Amino acid sequence: MRISIIGSGNVATHLAAAFKNAGHKIIDIYSPNYQNAALLAYHVGANAINKLSEIDRQTDVFVIAVKDDAIEGIAQQLAFYQKLTVHTSGATDLQSILKYNSLSGVFYPLQTFSKIKEVDFWQVPLCIEGADAAVTKQLEQLAQTISNNVQQINSDQRKILHLAAVFACNFPNNLYAIAQQLLARHQLDFNLLRPLILETAQKVQERFPLDVQTGPAIRNDGQTMAAHLNLLGDNPQLQQVYELLSQSIIKMGIEAKADK
Amino acid sequence: MRISIIGSGNVATHLAAAFKNAGHKIIDIYSPNYQNAALLAYHVGANAINKLSEIDRQTDVFVIAVKDDAIEGIAQQLAFYQKLTVHTSGATDLQSILKYNSLSGVFYPLQTFSKIKEVDFWQVPLCIEGADAAVTKQLEQLAQTISNNVQQINSDQRKILHLAAVFACNFPNNLYAIAQQLLARHQLDFNLLRPLILETAQKVQERFPLDVQTGPAIRNDGQTMAAHLNLLGDNPQLQQVYELLSQSIIKMGIEAKADK
Repeated sequence: MRISIIGSGNVATHLAAAFKNAGHKIIDIYSPNYQNAALLAYHVGANAINKLSEIDRQTDVFVIAVKDDAIEGIAQQLAFYQKLTVHTSGATDLQSILKYNSLSGVFYPLQTFSKIKEVDFWQVPLCIEGADAAVTKQLEQLAQTISNNVQQINSDQRKILHLAAVFACNFPNNLYAIAQQLLARHQLDFNLLRPLILETAQKVQERFPLDVQTGPAIRNDGQTMAAHLNLLGDNPQLQQVYELLSQSIIKMGIEAKADK
Repeated sequence: MRISIIGSGNVATHLAAAFKNAGHKIIDIYSPNYQNAALLAYHVGANAINKLSEIDRQTDVFVIAVKDDAIEGIAQQLAFYQKLTVHTSGATDLQSILKYNSLSGVFYPLQTFSKIKEVDFWQVPLCIEGADAAVTKQLEQLAQTISNNVQQINSDQRKILHLAAVFACNFPNNLYAIAQQLLARHQLDFNLLRPLILETAQKVQERFPLDVQTGPAIRNDGQTMAAHLNLLGDNPQLQQVYELLSQSIIKMGIEAKADK
């Protein structure tokens, strides 16, 4: 298919590469910042533009991969062409673009993307939603050319997924950062924790997190938890994080036992 | 070396297997529960005992891998033999066993172990501490037979490491569990999040967590955070976790910018 991408950020970059690798033709890359558009366009053999009015009409699909609050404005401008148009946002419902164009859909890759790191797109869950059965079918076919984990997810479910992804990705990463700072303050190398972080994530690839919870809280080891809070004595915010998550572990442990 | 292991839990199990694979002879496995001792002893070709007084004196090293609050009592009983004796606890200082035996040390594998999952012990950071230079040297040589990541870590540093490990492992796992429950309540499959969880951990294997933080908090995207808090409306505890960790991300982002 002939695909144009609106945006040049992390999602735009990884999607553009995946489409190109799958044999699609990337037509235009749009960014209000021409340099950004040009950089990505160069990598995928596309044309760079910084005015939406310059977009090539010979495009089959417009992929809107911009900040959430810019999606609707872009969709409104693209409605003029009445082409298949998708956004890629977990937190934005279909309606916000569907109201401008009946050929609308969502193409939400559930992964954390950085420009500096390649991702095997085949493994990325790709959550699609179409305005109707025909659009959904088209999106499914397109999605299956770049991922072997394509799921139909409606707007309400997608919002839950997006929220859950914050708990499963953004918050754990912040906890890694807290751990790294604790180590740095005591001249300890973050490399000491890297295997532990990886193993913790690998463990839940085949098990449920509740079944592999370890640590002082799940053992209800009050002595260790008190010692840890004491070590955090100079940092009330970290103490609060420690207490709240320990309580959360204890509570889940009790609920899990009650279920058995 | 001839090694006897006190304990039959996760750490005891993985250490015993690693020692055996490295060519050491496991002599005795002790557990107050004979069945537990026998099960592990069978796997590593050792003798099972449930009375410490039955332990074979022809042992070079006693490895105490029991709950933290049982370590000192065991060390006191083993002091009779005056053999090289180590505990494996992150949260317990050397002094608590050194006071009974000058040939004491610590052998702390910084990893999360479950009996159901194999671990490549060569990759496990093994934190050692000896009562003196001679003991340290002996422990280092022993440690290097099972891990290629051996580090000398004193008791104060080890306590920080243990605390940091709670932030890097136990708390992220609880957040995975929260995410899984959010999905389950909306008939969504946890498989949708597994690639994201793994990628988040893989990202920090070569980068620092602060440099790869993503999500609404680091973008200061108040609209999305408000929507998420609204979705959590029926659960004040999860709202509190969401707010606290979002604040933590925002604060770290501001500090990181100020450093640049």
